[in-house]
Amino acid sequence: MTSRDGFQWTPETGLVQGVPSIGVISPPTNITSEPGQFDVIVVGAGYSGLTASRDACLAGLKVLLLEARDRIGGRSWSSDIEGYPFEMGGTWVHWGQPHVWREISRYQMRNELEGSFDFSRGVNHFELRTNQGSAKLSHEEEDALLEGALYKFVDVDGDLGRRVVPFPHDSFHVPEARRYDQMSAQDRLTQVADIMTPRERAALESFVLLCSCGTLATTSFFEFLHWWALCGYSYRGCLDALISYKFKRGQSSFAIRFFREALSTGNLSYAFNSPIQSIDDHGDKVAVTTREGRRHAGARLVSTIPLNVLNTVAISPPLSTQRTAAANTGHVNQCVKVHAEISSRDMRSWTGISYPFNKLCYAIGDGTTPAGNTHIVCFGGAHNHLQPEEDINQTKAAVDSLSPGNMDIKRLVFHNWCKDEFAKGAWFFSPPQMLSTSLDALRSRHGNVVFANSDWAVGWRSFIDGAIEEGTRAAMAVVEELRPRPAVRGRL
Amino acid sequence: MTSRDGFQWTPETGLVQGVPSIGVISPPTNITSEPGQFDVIVVGAGYSGLTASRDACLAGLKVLLLEARDRIGGRSWSSDIEGYPFEMGGTWVHWGQPHVWREISRYQMRNELEGSFDFSRGVNHFELRTNQGSAKLSHEEEDALLEGALYKFVDVDGDLGRRVVPFPHDSFHVPEARRYDQMSAQDRLTQVADIMTPRERAALESFVLLCSCGTLATTSFFEFLHWWALCGYSYRGCLDALISYKFKRGQSSFAIRFFREALSTGNLSYAFNSPIQSIDDHGDKVAVTTREGRRHAGARLVSTIPLNVLNTVAISPPLSTQRTAAANTGHVNQCVKVHAEISSRDMRSWTGISYPFNKLCYAIGDGTTPAGNTHIVCFGGAHNHLQPEEDINQTKAAVDSLSPGNMDIKRLVFHNWCKDEFAKGAWFFSPPQMLSTSLDALRSRHGNVVFANSDWAVGWRSFIDGAIEEGTRAAMAVVEELRPRPAVRGRL
Repeated sequence: MTSRDGFQWTPETGLVQGVPSIGVISPPTNITSEPGQFDVIVVGAGYSGLTASRDACLAGLKVLLLEARDRIGGRSWSSDIEGYPFEMGGTWVHWGQPHVWREISRYQMRNELEGSFDFSRGVNHFELRTNQGSAKLSHEEEDALLEGALYKFVDVDGDLGRRVVPFPHDSFHVPEARRYDQMSAQDRLTQVADIMTPRERAALESFVLLCSCGTLATTSFFEFLHWWALCGYSYRGCLDALISYKFKRGQSSFAIRFFREALSTGNLSYAFNSPIQSIDDHGDKVAVTTREGRRHAGARLVSTIPLNVLNTVAISPPLSTQRTAAANTGHVNQCVKVHAEISSRDMRSWTGISYPFNKLCYAIGDGTTPAGNTHIVCFGGAHNHLQPEEDINQTKAAVDSLSPGNMDIKRLVFHNWCKDEFAKGAWFFSPPQMLSTSLDALRSRHGNVVFANSDWAVGWRSFIDGAIEEGTRAAMAVVEELRPRPAVRGRL
Repeated sequence: MTSRDGFQWTPETGLVQGVPSIGVISPPTNITSEPGQFDVIVVGAGYSGLTASRDACLAGLKVLLLEARDRIGGRSWSSDIEGYPFEMGGTWVHWGQPHVWREISRYQMRNELEGSFDFSRGVNHFELRTNQGSAKLSHEEEDALLEGALYKFVDVDGDLGRRVVPFPHDSFHVPEARRYDQMSAQDRLTQVADIMTPRERAALESFVLLCSCGTLATTSFFEFLHWWALCGYSYRGCLDALISYKFKRGQSSFAIRFFREALSTGNLSYAFNSPIQSIDDHGDKVAVTTREGRRHAGARLVSTIPLNVLNTVAISPPLSTQRTAAANTGHVNQCVKVHAEISSRDMRSWTGISYPFNKLCYAIGDGTTPAGNTHIVCFGGAHNHLQPEEDINQTKAAVDSLSPGNMDIKRLVFHNWCKDEFAKGAWFFSPPQMLSTSLDALRSRHGNVVFANSDWAVGWRSFIDGAIEEGTRAAMAVVEELRPRPAVRGRL
């Protein structure tokens, strides 16, 4: 099945909207008669919504899952182009991510991962292109460069951030950490500018922007420290957790497990292609109205609407001032992720940074396609923004500029998250002050509405892991509230 | 409530059997009438059994939980001595352990952890006592010594074990890894003996034996590599994951959450003080008979009986040759964990190794008791074995010998796992060859009986995490099999 989402370009077809994916659900709804009353309505079929739906269904609740798109996965989904999974959004997972790994383990998928990097052959180098010129370094030199620069950047306490964020899943455990949420990445760079070489600075800035996809000024330094702490306070930990391990058969092969399990309970009703217009929470029922005018009611509603589009839905009674303000501000991640299939097999072992002049600043060899070509994944962001479908030649030029002359492009694949009306951005990354002022408000209940999204997870916030964390939290709350109380404790 | 398990000694009371714990369940059973038919019988209320029971109850199945002891937690439970949680067994957790952390997150307990180490005050040193003499080192020197020694020990591939065990949750992903399961820790030490200093060797052997609590000859080198990989291939990672973070209110404050949640569903029947004698699996029912002669039947049975006592229960039809042989061999962990409450406040920041002459080889300052004394936790194992309750003066001498003259003992607390008839050992640690020959057999189904125990988990095997992994696996299998099939997929 082909999703409406995403774009493909090949020399033969030109630019085409829509990408095939095993995450597209057919038939798009299983509601065959006039809908009745549901226990829970879940809005959104990303990992938060899938987890909440599945857990609620497993507990015997009647669930209605509404999704605006034609597919599951939200900001994580994979292509099925000649069987090959280009990852359109959230990709990498790691066994140190508790919620995602619990599910991988539970679905017996632990041997379905593969590495993105393959430094066993070909050019096997790191290409660093900055305003000062170009250089080819070994991957060991790449690691040393980035590790050294990162250590200087994060070492606010003489212990590489460990004292400031000792419990990465309890961010403000040390109150002093809030101070770093007042700072941007730019502010911190100013503090350490004197002890950085130009190369370190370019590599570091590129790495930080790879994480936030904002600008240095809009990137919360605390949130970067939080990522660093999650990754075990080491560069190797960052590589391992952020960009190393992915599903051989793509993210959608994982997401579909949640959906199928929920469906197998017989408790799941669902409707795709059903963007919602409003949520009305009055009395002991909460009602949702779709753009098409369909109305559904449930005892509880789990909204997994992302932060950057939360204010596009009319919610009554109105959301709190704090939540509304945070949604109006929005997170800063305007990631541009472009997959290039190129003919050179030698580039499989290549990595590169082209910064700041290029519209794609960080890229790695990410796989070998069924045709035997090399798959390069390239990242850009708000600091030098590209709308990749608007001028495909500009996009191709940005790919080429990562390693001039080596990018014989056979195919481009991407999803423009910035123009996606149901996301308006990629994974969450906070501007300064948002977390210290609004995280609690974003996590709070609103009558019969529970908000669940990786955007306000406490652990691996922004990651698939955080989405599952949040879906788990929402389902637990709803199930505990709606579970029939046993008349006698021990019935048997 | 006071458990029958464990021992306490104080100068005032002498040696007393039984330790108070919030994990003791009262009333010990909620079966008030003649038992009926259960969907699932779960044998054992450690984390595997608690998880399996909870998940099955949540899914609407009728569960009977049978436990031989008077308490939950199995090989993990904490005292409640003047409100202080001495950890009698499994203790430490980390956010990189997926199953345990998913539950900590789910129960909103992420801010209920505290650090064991406190290097902020007092003597603040590492005391190394070997046959070559004694030395006091800084904790930085301690880390450097152990890190250096461990790197030599694990570096079988020029990449600190990463190439041999690249996916720690998929142990034999690289077939070559099986070769290291043919080797003991002693075999590996022989290979690297020439490049180790005597101090490195003593510290390393003590650390390896802290992990296995066997002898160097009975410790699988592969299993040590597996731990190393799980800990992120670093000494700091080992410290973080193995011995740094524990529950402020003790392990039992965590375990009780599973039990209470299961109970709240109204689907849980339970009976403590109910050791079982036999399991009979014939036809479509499986029956269990307790030592007292009570008989219960269910559609499925989840046995969480640990490996070292599996053969004490009569199972019909008989278990496979492979499983029986593995159970007869048993794992090698004969850990002796002794808590000492001592008067010196300065010792809070002390760590020590006394090896090989002493019967307790590794110890750290682990907390401050309500009386303001220092809590030292001490470890020994099979290599120089101690039965701590048999001769309390010998036990006190072993504590004292860790730091002669500094151990003014006010209290000792311990559980002798080696003589515990329901465990016959502490956490699983495999001898050479067991995993490569028997892991699959230990994980396999036996008719209507599912076996779930951390002893044969694939990830954090031996850890609380592995127990939850296994309980999750067992519940998922049983729920999928017993769930009523929906007549129509979308009912609404």
